[in-house]
Amino acid sequence: MGKSGLPVSPLAPAAFPALPVIEGVTFSSAAAGIKYQGRTDVTLIRIAAGSTLAGAFTRSSTRAANILDNQAKLAEGGDAPEGAAIIINSGNANAFTGARGQASVDAVTGAVAEALGLPRRRVFSSSTGVIGEPLPHERILAVVDDLAGRLDAAGAADAARAIMTTDTFPKGAAARVAGEGGEIRIAGIAKGSGMIAPDMATMLVYLFTDAAIPAPLLQQALASGLDTTFNAITVDSDTSTSDALILAATGQSPAAPITDLDGAAGQAFVAALHGVMRDLAHQVVRDGEGASKFVEIAVTGAASTEDAQRVAMSIANSPLVKTAIAGEDANWGRIVAAVGKSGAAADRDRLRIAFGDLVVAENGWRAPGYDEAAASAYMKNPELRIAVDLGLGTGARTVWTCDLTHGYIDINADYRS
Amino acid sequence: MGKSGLPVSPLAPAAFPALPVIEGVTFSSAAAGIKYQGRTDVTLIRIAAGSTLAGAFTRSSTRAANILDNQAKLAEGGDAPEGAAIIINSGNANAFTGARGQASVDAVTGAVAEALGLPRRRVFSSSTGVIGEPLPHERILAVVDDLAGRLDAAGAADAARAIMTTDTFPKGAAARVAGEGGEIRIAGIAKGSGMIAPDMATMLVYLFTDAAIPAPLLQQALASGLDTTFNAITVDSDTSTSDALILAATGQSPAAPITDLDGAAGQAFVAALHGVMRDLAHQVVRDGEGASKFVEIAVTGAASTEDAQRVAMSIANSPLVKTAIAGEDANWGRIVAAVGKSGAAADRDRLRIAFGDLVVAENGWRAPGYDEAAASAYMKNPELRIAVDLGLGTGARTVWTCDLTHGYIDINADYRS
Repeated sequence: MGKSGLPVSPLAPAAFPALPVIEGVTFSSAAAGIKYQGRTDVTLIRIAAGSTLAGAFTRSSTRAANILDNQAKLAEGGDAPEGAAIIINSGNANAFTGARGQASVDAVTGAVAEALGLPRRRVFSSSTGVIGEPLPHERILAVVDDLAGRLDAAGAADAARAIMTTDTFPKGAAARVAGEGGEIRIAGIAKGSGMIAPDMATMLVYLFTDAAIPAPLLQQALASGLDTTFNAITVDSDTSTSDALILAATGQSPAAPITDLDGAAGQAFVAALHGVMRDLAHQVVRDGEGASKFVEIAVTGAASTEDAQRVAMSIANSPLVKTAIAGEDANWGRIVAAVGKSGAAADRDRLRIAFGDLVVAENGWRAPGYDEAAASAYMKNPELRIAVDLGLGTGARTVWTCDLTHGYIDINADYRS
Repeated sequence: MGKSGLPVSPLAPAAFPALPVIEGVTFSSAAAGIKYQGRTDVTLIRIAAGSTLAGAFTRSSTRAANILDNQAKLAEGGDAPEGAAIIINSGNANAFTGARGQASVDAVTGAVAEALGLPRRRVFSSSTGVIGEPLPHERILAVVDDLAGRLDAAGAADAARAIMTTDTFPKGAAARVAGEGGEIRIAGIAKGSGMIAPDMATMLVYLFTDAAIPAPLLQQALASGLDTTFNAITVDSDTSTSDALILAATGQSPAAPITDLDGAAGQAFVAALHGVMRDLAHQVVRDGEGASKFVEIAVTGAASTEDAQRVAMSIANSPLVKTAIAGEDANWGRIVAAVGKSGAAADRDRLRIAFGDLVVAENGWRAPGYDEAAASAYMKNPELRIAVDLGLGTGARTVWTCDLTHGYIDINADYRS
């Protein structure tokens, strides 16, 4: 069973990965009883002096108080000469809580700043859980000193557990890159996109590296990977009010500083960073509510990248496509319909659709060699690849999603009954 | 049980309405065995000489052959001096069937033209059912003469049944308007948005009136009502390749011809027409797959009408909102999130949300008088109204949807298993 009482997703990795220590990053977690008893629900992460920071946040226009606070603080710049900290709680999203929400953010980040001797503007926060309920922030304040006294470089795995809500497994990923003069390490943890009892999906991601890299380059390295990783996944098309990603670089690797992203070291770092981001994004999909299939949707031949993204997301979010996949039904007609409704340029008679290596439709009709039995057999795999070529141009995009099952309805409709 | 073997929707009207005869319109239906045996699956509708025509079709870029054919024919103008006909089959959508699809359309509409002595360019067709399978159009050709010999002004109810696929009840609506010098009648039938076994949702709508009205005005009267009726409903956000609406006006009412839409007669006609359209649109939602709740979502205070539509559809299509409604959970936090992701201008601290008469949230937080027990009790109603005021401007839009239940998954995932 996962922490939430739900069975662990059948698509979960075999084990939580061994995350390397990132010099300059320490973690501690505690059980503050914010909503549930007997489970860790607050995590503190300290980032050493001299680090640089980057971030990405939900574009929701109803975003939570902590998101607005983080964005304002990062807008002042990504340098952290005195160091930085992140405090995260599960059990309460502190979202849609009006002026009181900002007061809670100020109280919590202020207490962390004081405990660690940091300026407030370098203390970031995330909250995930029920919406519209006041955050009992005094319960967080009560554990801050304890958390500050137990910070540990090996605490990432515990942190990955403490930030879970209805996640069925903790999520972590890492990479090592050969830098100039030494190794660069990257490690990350994430939660999502399980629904937050009884409210909504939230994705939280924290990435750490010991690379030495100026904040603007760090932000650029992060931003250039978002569209093909966290912005290329969907479970149910519902965007959270609280999605947040923070990336910290401590500069404590023996490798030479990265001074541009186009050199060999910069390129290797960016590729490894994006790999970790993709790995965590896939884990979020693998823990999608009720998921029984992990599905890659690869669109090529679009008139533009934007069109490819539009088509891929139209397919990935189609309830009819997702239920067909749940039913192991090779229903390519629903793919055709999802392409048609996407708003992207498409020509029915140039469309080519393949399930794995099986071409099921081309030139505006069922493929001549179409074999229903082979297609149905393919659909029984837990991991599926659906390839759609629009035959119009060079635009391409791959996205990942899961199927739509009775489990999704159980979790989201029946949760409080 | 409905024709499809599914239980009749709990949201179905008590009975099929008594549709008035529209002078100049006759119907006949037959069992051609296109896919299933022992049920009517082809309908012929004849429209008298001197009628005018209007239409609206799916915007899908992968639309079916018959849609392209109908659009090309109506693009030549809406006058039908020799009369017109519509032939509709269920059981096969003739969609994504390449060049053969157009050949089938030509064969069927050609046979009807010959049987009724009509020009081919005034014979329209619709097909609904499985996608990507060649239409066995010879089965339709075999019943055309029989259909042509049995045309009957009282056949609308039978036609409403013959066009059903997984619909659980036939859909009809009517209105009578006092014209200048006599009564004007309007009647319509529709099918949808049950999924087509085993493929996709299709909505077909046929409207008839005995009004005398020039084709351009008829098209204008139709078009001005689409956004608030058929374009204001959603079951699962999946747009069909085959949606079609055809409106015919026979001019056989004793009332004076309608020569402009702004006069009293024109306004009364347009209002009645839109009323019939709204009634049929609501019936389509009431027959949404697995629906147990009929939900009106009324958005006001938006910066523009477009923004209001965007917010309303974002709420109506949110799987998390729809599953919460299925679970009778007054989960307004999910409404906040759906507003936030819509892309429309919104200010968290001006948002006001009501379930029925109960204000649940305002000014960026739970309403002071919020009563969870009262809100939960309200959610037990089979018909719900969710009102969202954005507090920004005068843009408003109301849309209708249903909940997302295990029944939807049963129908769409488990159908072939």
